[in-house]
Amino acid sequence: VAPCGIVTLLTDFGAKDPFVGVMKGVILSRFPAARIVDLTHGIEPQDVAEAGFWLESSHVWFPRGSVHLAVVDPGVGTARAAIAVAADGHYFVAPDNGLLTPLVGRARDAAVRTIDLERLQVGTPSRTFHGRDVLAPAAADLASGRVGFAALGPRAQPSASPFVPVPSVSGQRVEGVVVAVDRFGNLITNVDETLLREVRSPLVYAGEMECPVVLTYMDASPGEYVALVNSSGRLEVARCLGNAAAGLGLGKGSTVRVVSREAGE
Amino acid sequence: VAPCGIVTLLTDFGAKDPFVGVMKGVILSRFPAARIVDLTHGIEPQDVAEAGFWLESSHVWFPRGSVHLAVVDPGVGTARAAIAVAADGHYFVAPDNGLLTPLVGRARDAAVRTIDLERLQVGTPSRTFHGRDVLAPAAADLASGRVGFAALGPRAQPSASPFVPVPSVSGQRVEGVVVAVDRFGNLITNVDETLLREVRSPLVYAGEMECPVVLTYMDASPGEYVALVNSSGRLEVARCLGNAAAGLGLGKGSTVRVVSREAGE
Amino acid sequence: VAPCGIVTLLTDFGAKDPFVGVMKGVILSRFPAARIVDLTHGIEPQDVAEAGFWLESSHVWFPRGSVHLAVVDPGVGTARAAIAVAADGHYFVAPDNGLLTPLVGRARDAAVRTIDLERLQVGTPSRTFHGRDVLAPAAADLASGRVGFAALGPRAQPSASPFVPVPSVSGQRVEGVVVAVDRFGNLITNVDETLLREVRSPLVYAGEMECPVVLTYMDASPGEYVALVNSSGRLEVARCLGNAAAGLGLGKGSTVRVVSREAGE
Repeated sequence: VAPCGIVTLLTDFGAKDPFVGVMKGVILSRFPAARIVDLTHGIEPQDVAEAGFWLESSHVWFPRGSVHLAVVDPGVGTARAAIAVAADGHYFVAPDNGLLTPLVGRARDAAVRTIDLERLQVGTPSRTFHGRDVLAPAAADLASGRVGFAALGPRAQPSASPFVPVPSVSGQRVEGVVVAVDRFGNLITNVDETLLREVRSPLVYAGEMECPVVLTYMDASPGEYVALVNSSGRLEVARCLGNAAAGLGLGKGSTVRVVSREAGE
Repeated sequence: VAPCGIVTLLTDFGAKDPFVGVMKGVILSRFPAARIVDLTHGIEPQDVAEAGFWLESSHVWFPRGSVHLAVVDPGVGTARAAIAVAADGHYFVAPDNGLLTPLVGRARDAAVRTIDLERLQVGTPSRTFHGRDVLAPAAADLASGRVGFAALGPRAQPSASPFVPVPSVSGQRVEGVVVAVDRFGNLITNVDETLLREVRSPLVYAGEMECPVVLTYMDASPGEYVALVNSSGRLEVARCLGNAAAGLGLGKGSTVRVVSREAGE
Repeated sequence: VAPCGIVTLLTDFGAKDPFVGVMKGVILSRFPAARIVDLTHGIEPQDVAEAGFWLESSHVWFPRGSVHLAVVDPGVGTARAAIAVAADGHYFVAPDNGLLTPLVGRARDAAVRTIDLERLQVGTPSRTFHGRDVLAPAAADLASGRVGFAALGPRAQPSASPFVPVPSVSGQRVEGVVVAVDRFGNLITNVDETLLREVRSPLVYAGEMECPVVLTYMDASPGEYVALVNSSGRLEVARCLGNAAAGLGLGKGSTVRVVSREAGE
């Protein structure tokens, strides 16, 4: 897919300091015609899993050929690599810390490259701001077409990561955690649709609350808790016309279990 | 007026989630050359009246032909329509919940259309995010010129609304409320200049404080409370070189009364 | 240097109100092709010194020919002038309240002009929003090339300012203050590299903590406090792999002293 000139930004930098602005300056210095769009800078500091979820659910609303730059980077300054991903007509640039791992796993078609600093022709990066010194230049060059995706560096696999929890599967039981809570209080988990499908007659427990699996938010009575597959293909716990997070006292990191009714639990 | 390619956004979405970014993706997908400008996303959640005030006072600083998209939508998912307004050289797209009603009332020249989803060629919208599924596509099509204003749908009247309080008028008395407080602590009311003019020798009460009607903020002694018609044509209570909201302990929803000195009150 | 069409914005307006959006409307009205970038709007209200520091450290990441508009303006409505600066390939527009003074002092090559409202062809500005009525129009005209730098008004010198503290120097002692704290907790002072160089065998005290002068953040043991010259040429106090502000209980306005080991203190 040809780049379309759009670069989106998703970070945990917040709005107090000019760090986001500085990254935009770097992008515009390398690619003056870039159209830069903020996805959000309100990711909780260093929450790689939340960043990965929002990036996955948001990028599909942008034109094909967009470059999505994500900087949530607890390991900045360590040996972790920077990677680029081409998936389903979109490009992604991020630290190789697990942020892009679920997205790659769920893509119909994904290629991954490690970003080679020498090919990028940036100097020695600072130890504290790879978003500015490595990732923004890579995103700009990819978006401008100056560097093709395959020329960014060698093929790679995205890392498993201590920052992104993985559901545990044991027979007909799946145990996941909440990775994001949206403004409606819906509890979004790391349990993928495909994992859910492997459980016969699934029943979901959010904390101690039993939640039937339904198709839409409205397939329930007001106030009832339900589980459903959301528009990103993730298991989500919601409350009909209410706020599940507040009602259940649950949030990011809370456990969500899927069991089989047939298993007699 | 020909659209100029600018789309402004005003919402109550805040900065935590990527919902504003997603709307920008939708706009850029339909109109790649759009120049998108954030007016504010800091409207208090679901405060339609505050949104209407800031939109009205801000849009005049943009070029003619701008499209202003406002999403504060307590009724999302219900039967309320989406409307578009052409007024004084600007275009507006918003839910038909009263947000645009004062603006239409005050415009020299305004036309209103109900947005027809079939003409817009969007699919069935989600029940929870019409900003993304209806309003952003309509704003993009209007701004790009792909759909002319009159082609958006049938003529309409903007609704009166439970979300936007209306001043009550009784003879020589007008009773309004504060709909916004600006950063200087000025109390901006829903009382229009034309209502004020109908009161002979008007005197304004903000809570229990008697405020003389003056022409500018400085027509008073330091610390004194005054009432004036602001640059948006609204009655406003201010404190000379001070903060009226803090000084009077008043805020949004507080009552402001206009009485006639001649009435002997 | 020819303007490149980029206008950056740095203010203390925050995100609640549409004031930043309104300035963008004014810029786009005068210069429709402007590419506007937010540096930050999170400067602490009226903190001119913090604004000056972040502007200086951030602007270098933008292309030459960028126009940087800074509005932190405790003296709005008083007789203070608006100035424009051309320095090292960049342009700056700000109130003449000290915001640009350190930047001018540190530039290799700087010229300063007072902005002449008549030449700018703006009407009489409001008394409360010169960002909209004077500074945004000046930045737009400079960025579009409609008005050359020298045509903005007469040559000037940037003011010393009650809002920007100046280090005191007495023999081999320098006493400065912290003007900004970055997200890593580093304490950034108003003490310039050149002042530091004049002290033989310098030793830095942040509060009561003695901090050796080192070259990089990592030239110390974990937890140790150090002083170094940061990438903006300012004396900064940092904690190796930690947060100096939190660890020392210091913040903006705290005193930082430089003494000579040879002086026997």
